[in-house]
Amino acid sequence: MPDFDLVIRNGKVATASETFFSDIGIQDGIVVALAQNLPAGAREIDATDRLVLPGGVDTHCHVDEPRAPPTASADSFASGSASAAAGGTTSLICFAKQGPNISATDAVAAHHQRARRARIDFSFHITLTDPTPEVLEQQLPALVEAGHRSFKIFLTYSGSRITDGQALRVLAAGRKLGALVCIHAEHHELIEFYTEALVAAGLTAPKYHAWAKPMIVERECVHRVCALAEALDTPIQVFHVSGAEAAEEIARAQDRGLKVWAETCPQYLVLTEQDLDRPGFEGAKFIFSPAGRTTADQEALWEAIRRGTIFNVTSDHAPTRYAGPDGKLAFGADAPFTKVPNGVPGLAARLPILFSEGVAKGRIDLQTFVAITATNPAKLFGLAPRKGTIAVGADADIAIWDPAKQVTITNELMLHDNDHTPYEGMQVTGWPEITLVRGVPVVEHGKVVAEEGHGQFLARGPYDFIAPRGVFPTPFNPVDRVVVG
Amino acid sequence: MPDFDLVIRNGKVATASETFFSDIGIQDGIVVALAQNLPAGAREIDATDRLVLPGGVDTHCHVDEPRAPPTASADSFASGSASAAAGGTTSLICFAKQGPNISATDAVAAHHQRARRARIDFSFHITLTDPTPEVLEQQLPALVEAGHRSFKIFLTYSGSRITDGQALRVLAAGRKLGALVCIHAEHHELIEFYTEALVAAGLTAPKYHAWAKPMIVERECVHRVCALAEALDTPIQVFHVSGAEAAEEIARAQDRGLKVWAETCPQYLVLTEQDLDRPGFEGAKFIFSPAGRTTADQEALWEAIRRGTIFNVTSDHAPTRYAGPDGKLAFGADAPFTKVPNGVPGLAARLPILFSEGVAKGRIDLQTFVAITATNPAKLFGLAPRKGTIAVGADADIAIWDPAKQVTITNELMLHDNDHTPYEGMQVTGWPEITLVRGVPVVEHGKVVAEEGHGQFLARGPYDFIAPRGVFPTPFNPVDRVVVG
Amino acid sequence: MPDFDLVIRNGKVATASETFFSDIGIQDGIVVALAQNLPAGAREIDATDRLVLPGGVDTHCHVDEPRAPPTASADSFASGSASAAAGGTTSLICFAKQGPNISATDAVAAHHQRARRARIDFSFHITLTDPTPEVLEQQLPALVEAGHRSFKIFLTYSGSRITDGQALRVLAAGRKLGALVCIHAEHHELIEFYTEALVAAGLTAPKYHAWAKPMIVERECVHRVCALAEALDTPIQVFHVSGAEAAEEIARAQDRGLKVWAETCPQYLVLTEQDLDRPGFEGAKFIFSPAGRTTADQEALWEAIRRGTIFNVTSDHAPTRYAGPDGKLAFGADAPFTKVPNGVPGLAARLPILFSEGVAKGRIDLQTFVAITATNPAKLFGLAPRKGTIAVGADADIAIWDPAKQVTITNELMLHDNDHTPYEGMQVTGWPEITLVRGVPVVEHGKVVAEEGHGQFLARGPYDFIAPRGVFPTPFNPVDRVVVG
Amino acid sequence: MPDFDLVIRNGKVATASETFFSDIGIQDGIVVALAQNLPAGAREIDATDRLVLPGGVDTHCHVDEPRAPPTASADSFASGSASAAAGGTTSLICFAKQGPNISATDAVAAHHQRARRARIDFSFHITLTDPTPEVLEQQLPALVEAGHRSFKIFLTYSGSRITDGQALRVLAAGRKLGALVCIHAEHHELIEFYTEALVAAGLTAPKYHAWAKPMIVERECVHRVCALAEALDTPIQVFHVSGAEAAEEIARAQDRGLKVWAETCPQYLVLTEQDLDRPGFEGAKFIFSPAGRTTADQEALWEAIRRGTIFNVTSDHAPTRYAGPDGKLAFGADAPFTKVPNGVPGLAARLPILFSEGVAKGRIDLQTFVAITATNPAKLFGLAPRKGTIAVGADADIAIWDPAKQVTITNELMLHDNDHTPYEGMQVTGWPEITLVRGVPVVEHGKVVAEEGHGQFLARGPYDFIAPRGVFPTPFNPVDRVVVG
Repeated sequence: MPDFDLVIRNGKVATASETFFSDIGIQDGIVVALAQNLPAGAREIDATDRLVLPGGVDTHCHVDEPRAPPTASADSFASGSASAAAGGTTSLICFAKQGPNISATDAVAAHHQRARRARIDFSFHITLTDPTPEVLEQQLPALVEAGHRSFKIFLTYSGSRITDGQALRVLAAGRKLGALVCIHAEHHELIEFYTEALVAAGLTAPKYHAWAKPMIVERECVHRVCALAEALDTPIQVFHVSGAEAAEEIARAQDRGLKVWAETCPQYLVLTEQDLDRPGFEGAKFIFSPAGRTTADQEALWEAIRRGTIFNVTSDHAPTRYAGPDGKLAFGADAPFTKVPNGVPGLAARLPILFSEGVAKGRIDLQTFVAITATNPAKLFGLAPRKGTIAVGADADIAIWDPAKQVTITNELMLHDNDHTPYEGMQVTGWPEITLVRGVPVVEHGKVVAEEGHGQFLARGPYDFIAPRGVFPTPFNPVDRVVVG
Repeated sequence: MPDFDLVIRNGKVATASETFFSDIGIQDGIVVALAQNLPAGAREIDATDRLVLPGGVDTHCHVDEPRAPPTASADSFASGSASAAAGGTTSLICFAKQGPNISATDAVAAHHQRARRARIDFSFHITLTDPTPEVLEQQLPALVEAGHRSFKIFLTYSGSRITDGQALRVLAAGRKLGALVCIHAEHHELIEFYTEALVAAGLTAPKYHAWAKPMIVERECVHRVCALAEALDTPIQVFHVSGAEAAEEIARAQDRGLKVWAETCPQYLVLTEQDLDRPGFEGAKFIFSPAGRTTADQEALWEAIRRGTIFNVTSDHAPTRYAGPDGKLAFGADAPFTKVPNGVPGLAARLPILFSEGVAKGRIDLQTFVAITATNPAKLFGLAPRKGTIAVGADADIAIWDPAKQVTITNELMLHDNDHTPYEGMQVTGWPEITLVRGVPVVEHGKVVAEEGHGQFLARGPYDFIAPRGVFPTPFNPVDRVVVG
Repeated sequence: MPDFDLVIRNGKVATASETFFSDIGIQDGIVVALAQNLPAGAREIDATDRLVLPGGVDTHCHVDEPRAPPTASADSFASGSASAAAGGTTSLICFAKQGPNISATDAVAAHHQRARRARIDFSFHITLTDPTPEVLEQQLPALVEAGHRSFKIFLTYSGSRITDGQALRVLAAGRKLGALVCIHAEHHELIEFYTEALVAAGLTAPKYHAWAKPMIVERECVHRVCALAEALDTPIQVFHVSGAEAAEEIARAQDRGLKVWAETCPQYLVLTEQDLDRPGFEGAKFIFSPAGRTTADQEALWEAIRRGTIFNVTSDHAPTRYAGPDGKLAFGADAPFTKVPNGVPGLAARLPILFSEGVAKGRIDLQTFVAITATNPAKLFGLAPRKGTIAVGADADIAIWDPAKQVTITNELMLHDNDHTPYEGMQVTGWPEITLVRGVPVVEHGKVVAEEGHGQFLARGPYDFIAPRGVFPTPFNPVDRVVVG
Repeated sequence: MPDFDLVIRNGKVATASETFFSDIGIQDGIVVALAQNLPAGAREIDATDRLVLPGGVDTHCHVDEPRAPPTASADSFASGSASAAAGGTTSLICFAKQGPNISATDAVAAHHQRARRARIDFSFHITLTDPTPEVLEQQLPALVEAGHRSFKIFLTYSGSRITDGQALRVLAAGRKLGALVCIHAEHHELIEFYTEALVAAGLTAPKYHAWAKPMIVERECVHRVCALAEALDTPIQVFHVSGAEAAEEIARAQDRGLKVWAETCPQYLVLTEQDLDRPGFEGAKFIFSPAGRTTADQEALWEAIRRGTIFNVTSDHAPTRYAGPDGKLAFGADAPFTKVPNGVPGLAARLPILFSEGVAKGRIDLQTFVAITATNPAKLFGLAPRKGTIAVGADADIAIWDPAKQVTITNELMLHDNDHTPYEGMQVTGWPEITLVRGVPVVEHGKVVAEEGHGQFLARGPYDFIAPRGVFPTPFNPVDRVVVG
């Protein structure tokens, strides 16, 4: 039995499959013992009446990502990782984005530089905006080998979007290299068509953002990307499913046996299209894509979570300040929605909102909460068994929750470098009191207590899910046919 | 009671809703009387033991359409219309195709020129390959006004295909002008991806044509075009649905209340992917797109016909000779499938195959046969009530069928200007003995008896189907929102 | 060319497949000529600006059917048939009901007696409440042979209901004899369970009728009877589908290729559960089974009609007076819903309501109206080609409609022997001015002009629909396996 | 840190959510510590290269259940529990069956008597064959209170079956008392109908067992019981789902948000209808109900397991000897299938088959195996957190597996009191070497090492699953309406 650097005592521990009372003994940042009445540790945390949960794994967040001026990211890795820890999250996967002036290799290197300030552990998706043969064949193999085992592609957004033909090349590379392809799926030309019509009619207030990208834009594209994944027999994750119809397409793909995983985000569970119509220019704070939907869509998403259609919930943290020269107001309070930077901050709010709206309100149980916020994403993105659970041998990434605490969300509580949160004023039940990364407290009772740089890069392995050949219904797979003859 | 130019006597008349015994009195090319024991006409046809059916309306056929050399159409309007009449068809809608060097207006004018040789009545879809504002706003209004009330677009085929963004412009024009948009729906980039892989592997025999465009290529695109039609609240017809999965997407769209109509063709009902693998280069005769599928798909299509999911059956006549410098063998008997001109002849074979495989084999009843081959397409494409049925006031476009006749299909029976038919040797029950267009025999017992030029241009009205606003479930329609405010 | 007893001139004739302008020549009660400008007939009707439609075929109505006292049928055949004609209906199929004290054979004979007073043509379903071997093997063969080619069974209603085991015997008899089995499908024990709970709670006002038999009661049973029909490979018609969920089960059965036909009734298209809650005891007028549903269900039924899921629309005329010792008030104005006789009168109102709500409001086109009210039921129940259309050789059963007439429905207009109609005060557009049965006017401008006894019994043939063996997906059919070995 | 009675060392521990290397410290039959390098225990088991899994929980097995002579159960609790442990199972729930001559209370008491010989822990479902008010209101409350928290009902089998009306009473009692209702769902009268037809035709060999109860018999009934559960807003478990169509109905019910759980059994995953046709009377060994289906059904069931549609896998152990006066041969080797006792033994074979066909063949992962065999059933039936997992505080019910061991299944290995196993000769990969119940070895390397009576009765709590009111789509719930007014 080892000596313990830290013992968490008397807590109620939850994993994705069960809840039990146990002390936790931690040594060298690793959980080494689960037992009642453990011997004393060098440090102790009393978790009486507290839940002891795996720290959150947020696999979709934009941290200190370069943008086209005048807009700029409202978070460095220092503030972003602090915010994540404030909300009980201990690992994040953000984006190293290839651009017109930067290769995938250089983008990854540059992001490693920026990420040195992180207080929690981190990894990168590689965003591909120009998947040339050079990138696919020369750069990606080494990057994947180094643990960057997922690619992100956009099918909309001028400047970032790639064509279906390019997407096929990326999917083929993902298949070959064992990297998961994550997709922002909205029909680009249809958004353009709608936007043009709205602008021509002078309908440019924030609320028209939702008119420009209604659900059909997403549903079409979700079906399309599932088809492309089926065509190449490659797994994908569809990002930020926003409502009932998109979830239905996901479910259909899964029912056909496809290896399609989907995420949603808190903004789709608690915000709606109506928020875009708040007085004045306030609606700009709710401009994100896909757009918010309806309360009926929210309930459909909870049902999709319960059914397993949606596998994990991320923040899609995309921080832009409201005021200031780089914020949503950069072009003034009557700027058309087309000029307002997209995205909301969410690293800190993700877990408290899910816990409160999910567990406290009885929509999901505690095991599902742990699964969708920590265990599932860790497995899907190659971080398991080190991350995503509390088990002997795993990193001591732990959030100690007061499940009964009543909190009103304020911007200050978010501990980010932003001037607002879209969840301002929201009442939640349950809050993480202490967040530990590898046994070291990062945030305690709302204070950042870990240094910049405590975070480590996580080189990831292949996704950890069976995809048995025999049961996969491939009606036609030329890739294999070519091989087999 | 008028004097009759022609009386068809003692036949069993069928429409899309019933079968009855009646003589038919014809005057000036029009059905003017239905009764038993009509007075004598100037001419008489004894239809004892014969079915008297509305002449077929073939709304998807390529006749004398200019092509890129070396390939060339194997039919003029003279031979094409003769072939149609040989198979009981009395009206056709073919394609006036805009091209890089020819405007829509000029293409229509040129096709009118070529169509002067037609022996049966005809109309044109306008194929749009470059829908510029000039075309959409300056040319189409007048062309639609002149009765060219449908547009054809391709989403695949290099040179012909348009982008989704262009398709939206065409759909918007169709909505505004009251023209139906017809779509060849296959995912272009995915076909390219597969093709490239096959060619790289040296897999270029005719059978690999089907590998290059498997069902998923079509299913994806069918879903996509239905979504685009839904987004703009515009009716469409999806051309040549080839099997179960594409039909399922059509049914889903219809179940959502969309105004989506679908056709299939005889080649998908009686040929399969296996035909592409016939010995030698014979498979090239079966290269058409979408590709042939499986026998299970055939049965799914019959079920879709019975359920009304598929609304009409056309030939997609696309005649290329096998031999000769402009034929499928133009590049030699080991040419890769990518070089082989697509398409099969089918104007003459369409109705006999459908009658035999459908009615004679008990898969559909006689009313359904009439509906899908004549009445439905006439209504959908604005030819009703003049065409598509036998009723007082309608054109006397009539096919007199021997329902019991046993025929072995040969190329000679097709009366086209081609050197083969893909249906060579097929046994059918039932054959049209006499085909009348506006009361004038065009083909009698296998002989062409009408002059070139007997055919008239059919200026068409708007499609004749309710699309009630109130019941259309538009979850979001910015076009209308813009109007309504 | 014959001499005409009657010529209907200048009208716009509609069938299930088309509309055309034609005079109609009638001789000996039969349509013998359709033409423009027919020679004069012995009598003439000017139908200028009028629609000339096939007379309605109402295949589900209770006319002069004996009941358990104190309640009694509010119509004789004299009044019932007058009412039908008042609404444009020219043929009806009612019920000869076997009972505890009357065999099937005797019930049919007795009903023939009562039907002698009919002014329009009629036929009988045989209602089987005790399908003993004696009935099934000794009585039914002769009755079917005599043209009573359909059986009706109830799966609910104490006294009338049969068990699933008995239903299987009836289905087997229908299969063997070529008779169609029609089914009232609601889950009996569940209704009993709910009713008992409601009564125990003192919830017995009319509105609780709908609580006692909610949609799930029907949906369950519709699935069940489709399964029984599938198990025996026997066609059925499901009676009075009342809303979305039941229609969905019908559609699923049809999608599996089952020979399942469904009807609905006007009360499900224009009344709802809310009507049961009208002030005082008025709600009792709206007690019918299945119960009225919601406006959303109404729209789902229209969609099911458009999609072909629902094949015909009948009245389910079940006339009980409101006042009087045999009426809905028989047990007083505070009687529990369990004591109130079920059913509404509807023979006269059926077609005007469907025309107005369907055609005039743009939910269906005129062809669909003709199909679901006349052509389809005539075919399904073996009355075609004699009934259900306007064609050479068919009976001259014709309703001449003023499509623009504005009418407020009153009880007087119904021409029945009842003291109320549930549609009192409803505004409709379109009304039948003259109703002819075999060329003889029965009702003209609201007056009964035909004698009692003008109606003839219609011996019916087998249902006229293909059910091809080859395409029927029988996963297991022991009946055939037994035969085949 | 406690002293350990037993330490399992160096094993690879798996739960339903993860796999990790850890020693396990056990004291007083309970897992008290998970850590690497635990101090020595009084006893030690070296689990190097072994999986350490939660002992199986078999929630559907018939052990020493009285039957109608001449047939008799082939197992006592002594042999049945030994067999379970031989296959890695540590808890079972069997049936105390009410009968014509025994009340529910007495049946439970009598079964407690018999269960005193059990070597592993056990609990009872109460099988209700005559749910009188006396039983429902007087007996069940106390029995449920004493921990018998589930009822079993049959909708088929003469003698055991209850009507739908009775089933509603049982469901209502389950709702009120918080007991889960488990259902054998097959359409009784349809089975009778088929059986009668087969017997009449002389088709009585064992293979006709499957003809008498084809899939439609089950599919219909699964839909029905889901509807009854929906009608009363009561959770149910559907027992032994046997193939694709039944699973589809389960999935539909779950998609509507119903609290419907389903199980399947190994016989449906590895046996088929074909086994009934083995030479001679061997087929009788494969007579169980529902009957075996097809290999396509097997794959559909695996998919349903992966999708979560099927929640747990049980044995439905129903042991009858083949030979002997109480066996399948009791009526001779040409007895009709109707006389052959139903059921197969399966307690020992369940886990090895699932491990081999599931985990070793890559159809499911190890977590899913643990979930469906232990964790899920423990939660569903109120045995969690004490049973079904390996966690601090849980009973030390553990199976130590050699995942690579190649075993040919023989009857001897089953350690039951039967003369055959239907899985004789089947090759499996993976086998449990040691099975511990509360820390005490019951079977070690194929030898029974625990005394009779080591097993304890498990009083169960309510099922442990959220069924949130807010999201439950109750279209009509008179029970609540009555309460609410």
